[in-house]
Amino acid sequence: MKQIRTDLAMESSEAAGCIPGVSIASWEESGVLITEVVIETEESAKNLSKPMGRYITLECEGVRTRDPMAYDALSSILAEEIARLLPPDENRTPALIVGLGNRMVTPDALGPKTIDHVLVTRHLINELPDETDERLSSVCCICPGVLGVTGIETMESVKSIVSAVKPRVIICIDALAARASKRVGVSIQLSDVGIQPGSGVGNHRRAITKEELGVPVIAIGMPTVVYASTIARDALYLMSEGEAEEEMLDKITKTLFENEIGEMIVTPREIDDMIEDAAGLIARAINISLQDRLSQSELDGLLKR
Amino acid sequence: MKQIRTDLAMESSEAAGCIPGVSIASWEESGVLITEVVIETEESAKNLSKPMGRYITLECEGVRTRDPMAYDALSSILAEEIARLLPPDENRTPALIVGLGNRMVTPDALGPKTIDHVLVTRHLINELPDETDERLSSVCCICPGVLGVTGIETMESVKSIVSAVKPRVIICIDALAARASKRVGVSIQLSDVGIQPGSGVGNHRRAITKEELGVPVIAIGMPTVVYASTIARDALYLMSEGEAEEEMLDKITKTLFENEIGEMIVTPREIDDMIEDAAGLIARAINISLQDRLSQSELDGLLKR
Amino acid sequence: MKQIRTDLAMESSEAAGCIPGVSIASWEESGVLITEVVIETEESAKNLSKPMGRYITLECEGVRTRDPMAYDALSSILAEEIARLLPPDENRTPALIVGLGNRMVTPDALGPKTIDHVLVTRHLINELPDETDERLSSVCCICPGVLGVTGIETMESVKSIVSAVKPRVIICIDALAARASKRVGVSIQLSDVGIQPGSGVGNHRRAITKEELGVPVIAIGMPTVVYASTIARDALYLMSEGEAEEEMLDKITKTLFENEIGEMIVTPREIDDMIEDAAGLIARAINISLQDRLSQSELDGLLKR
Amino acid sequence: MKQIRTDLAMESSEAAGCIPGVSIASWEESGVLITEVVIETEESAKNLSKPMGRYITLECEGVRTRDPMAYDALSSILAEEIARLLPPDENRTPALIVGLGNRMVTPDALGPKTIDHVLVTRHLINELPDETDERLSSVCCICPGVLGVTGIETMESVKSIVSAVKPRVIICIDALAARASKRVGVSIQLSDVGIQPGSGVGNHRRAITKEELGVPVIAIGMPTVVYASTIARDALYLMSEGEAEEEMLDKITKTLFENEIGEMIVTPREIDDMIEDAAGLIARAINISLQDRLSQSELDGLLKR
Repeated sequence: MKQIRTDLAMESSEAAGCIPGVSIASWEESGVLITEVVIETEESAKNLSKPMGRYITLECEGVRTRDPMAYDALSSILAEEIARLLPPDENRTPALIVGLGNRMVTPDALGPKTIDHVLVTRHLINELPDETDERLSSVCCICPGVLGVTGIETMESVKSIVSAVKPRVIICIDALAARASKRVGVSIQLSDVGIQPGSGVGNHRRAITKEELGVPVIAIGMPTVVYASTIARDALYLMSEGEAEEEMLDKITKTLFENEIGEMIVTPREIDDMIEDAAGLIARAINISLQDRLSQSELDGLLKR
Repeated sequence: MKQIRTDLAMESSEAAGCIPGVSIASWEESGVLITEVVIETEESAKNLSKPMGRYITLECEGVRTRDPMAYDALSSILAEEIARLLPPDENRTPALIVGLGNRMVTPDALGPKTIDHVLVTRHLINELPDETDERLSSVCCICPGVLGVTGIETMESVKSIVSAVKPRVIICIDALAARASKRVGVSIQLSDVGIQPGSGVGNHRRAITKEELGVPVIAIGMPTVVYASTIARDALYLMSEGEAEEEMLDKITKTLFENEIGEMIVTPREIDDMIEDAAGLIARAINISLQDRLSQSELDGLLKR
Repeated sequence: MKQIRTDLAMESSEAAGCIPGVSIASWEESGVLITEVVIETEESAKNLSKPMGRYITLECEGVRTRDPMAYDALSSILAEEIARLLPPDENRTPALIVGLGNRMVTPDALGPKTIDHVLVTRHLINELPDETDERLSSVCCICPGVLGVTGIETMESVKSIVSAVKPRVIICIDALAARASKRVGVSIQLSDVGIQPGSGVGNHRRAITKEELGVPVIAIGMPTVVYASTIARDALYLMSEGEAEEEMLDKITKTLFENEIGEMIVTPREIDDMIEDAAGLIARAINISLQDRLSQSELDGLLKR
Repeated sequence: MKQIRTDLAMESSEAAGCIPGVSIASWEESGVLITEVVIETEESAKNLSKPMGRYITLECEGVRTRDPMAYDALSSILAEEIARLLPPDENRTPALIVGLGNRMVTPDALGPKTIDHVLVTRHLINELPDETDERLSSVCCICPGVLGVTGIETMESVKSIVSAVKPRVIICIDALAARASKRVGVSIQLSDVGIQPGSGVGNHRRAITKEELGVPVIAIGMPTVVYASTIARDALYLMSEGEAEEEMLDKITKTLFENEIGEMIVTPREIDDMIEDAAGLIARAINISLQDRLSQSELDGLLKR
């Protein structure tokens, strides 16, 4: 099944089954199912087509029915998990939040829409360092746009801003592709490995990683789509009870999708609401984890919505 | 294959093969492939799950690559076909254009977005009948919204407006579901049968037809989605070489799509642009067909964009 | 100062000074200043160019600074005042909420954007009357659009929907013009007199009132603009210490505003956020007043945001 | 009248009257009025509060009535004037187009919305230099956002991208404030002096100029607002026939605008359409001037809208 595309390490490891060099753990907390995949060796990384590192997936049933309680539980646990990956906040060195993707393409707009809800403070702290509440952590944001719209590689933009802002950490938010449609709009993946080439709905072409940028890169993503060819291949695979040959799968998939207007995706009909909800949830978790010296009501007051 | 859903009569008749009571013709004009399906008997209507009437599908390769020439050809031919269905324009009785669907749900926004580009004149003619250019045809518009948002059946809203406005014809625009992903954003269906219950991306619950409203109803639609289950079923069917049993198809489809966040659709990643383009194209055809006594540059001048 | 335009009865009566047939009272509640103007006679109605009836204006300082507490206080008191005007909820006869104005023209979008946040229940109650929580009140909504876009008078659309839905009460939401810029985005006017011709940012041409529709009409509005000519006239009037002659005011105002691209308005630079905030606030008050048998958390659960 | 704010050099020089060191010329071309102000000395620059350099203002009556011919004339002449300021296109060094302002604040969204329509080619040329039409000029774009949203000075973002992209020229697009409301949405200013601190609807805090960036900076702006205080002051000044004292003007202006929700602006009610039209017009002029080896229909084909 090597041609099935997913940005979730959890799904890659599920498909691969039990392999050496990959440790998997899962547990529940306040109704949220947490799965941690650690890819420990170069070989297992190669097997799963995902770099070595730690991947945490959060899932919560209530999100399917848009239960407000589920959103609260999920964002609180996401905040805790982000906090675990943050380097210490010293000398008010800023965190840089990067909203990847294209605001004008709904399935790819998760990153820019999350940025709309992040509490930004760097300019206040820089201007009036003595008058700004010292408990505020310094935060700034960019939406670099996508290559087809700007003519500039995302990595080029991020690298140049990083050299100007010199952040202590980068948090990238991106719309992902899943293998299973049931994870669309429901699962959140958090990892310490940054963004890989070819990942995301917008298909990044160069890595956005600590190796490239010299700063830890936390990646937060939510699947917003499944590629249509994945659905077809999975249907075929299930039918053949695992006996299908790659070649035949390719041929049938090609027949189904020839002559389309663009790359076909599978997504919920209510994709606009799904993206808005997810953007609010992820931004809330980022705000809580970065501004951990403020109470929730102080935070709400500063956000003013 | 009876559970495959499509709003295109052309696809229903393709799937059914040659059956009595259905006549099919197709020809090309300026690079546009025109297919006419006429469902002539009650029995064939039942077989195809589409009411008796005339369905015209226009398709144009160039739309796939967003070729401006293709849009012009397609909208001109659509205008001619609409004109053929229009009752005579007497006593400045208005045409009522109805934008079906939900503006806030991108795959379902085709109708409301088309309305944004329609030339509206009824109020000018009603106020200053003697001072308005007598070549102008009277046109008015509504976007009734969808049941889940308004709490009012689309048909109730349309019926009540029809009783107030007393139009000579109703033209409904709606986002459709296709069977084949290659038709999404590319094919346009025009018919004289109105809107059927269960059709459209928003799933209308009551018929919007001449029988119900006492006025001819022209329906214009473009597929914006394929249901994800259709893709899976088609994959399976192809693989089984036509031998698959309904029951097994159902079971596998269910396995693939259980626990999703909402009804899953297949659509191009660039759905936002696709809807904008299609709305402009359809509105242009409606404007040309209704304002047939104006030159193109007079029409452009009135539209002011 | 007769040419100064305002949709707020409070400002009309302020400008007119103490006149017979108008009673004014004001008091504070939870930090909200409430002013009630009752126009009691036909003569005073003529003097103020506002129909006889009760007008309540709510103002809250904290809204200027986007204080979340101020929004809560304001929406709670607005809910109480709406509740006072509601006819009894018998036999699950629906309330019809009407979002006046044009969604595509930011200063005029308050009505349609409020509708986005109203809890709609009529379709659920109609379909499954026995299975729907009997404490739910029946609510439906429309956005009739504006004459220039639909070619249909707002009043025509509302009247036709009213005859279909037969509501027990109509609540209209509209963007207003104020005289004083300090009231823009801050004051909310509630009245039992419906909507008057010439009022609102979109300038309604026919009355939407109980007399016309046979159902009580509650109007809720917030000033989103001041007409630019009002600002100029007020500047001149202040400077002349009340001595300025109408003719001179007209002449100078004309000099300032000749050759503009359209009607000039005064509004905050952050008009988009202001409209969003106000729409949320008004919708919240409407939901609380109509669904008064639900707790706040039950209401939030149904709204799912 | 020193406190009247305008970003148009033409208005500054009008207000100042004839002063040494400023040359003004104006002429008509295809119905477009062109005014050139050259500020030639440091002293006159100080007098006008505008840096030394060349400022060209284009005005066209037909834009007021949204005449499509007027848009064509205006964009063609703007393209010619931009072309005059462009450095030679050697070695396919890119032009960098910068959309200043905040997409989410309608009066400040001109820059980002213009970017939406600019033909971007740098990525195509960089990837496949030999396969890309050699007549294509290299173009890339950014929308740096505004300080309050990103926490990063616009100048910091632009400088860092410039160091990565090394463009031959920077073209900045920005929403401006005018003094006279008749210029809002109608006049376009082009200059070779870049962007000054305090200018624009979004109030840039640091200069974006050749001196700072080492690359020529062309600024294109259209007034989208007049500050409300400007209108009031102008009204007072006109009334006093030039005799008003600064102090009194200040006092009355303060009385009019105290306690507002934010900075008040004067703008047309149809601000959304005005911004869309202007963005399309400016982008068209930029595309024509940069891609001067393509025919109009080749350009349209590449833009695909």
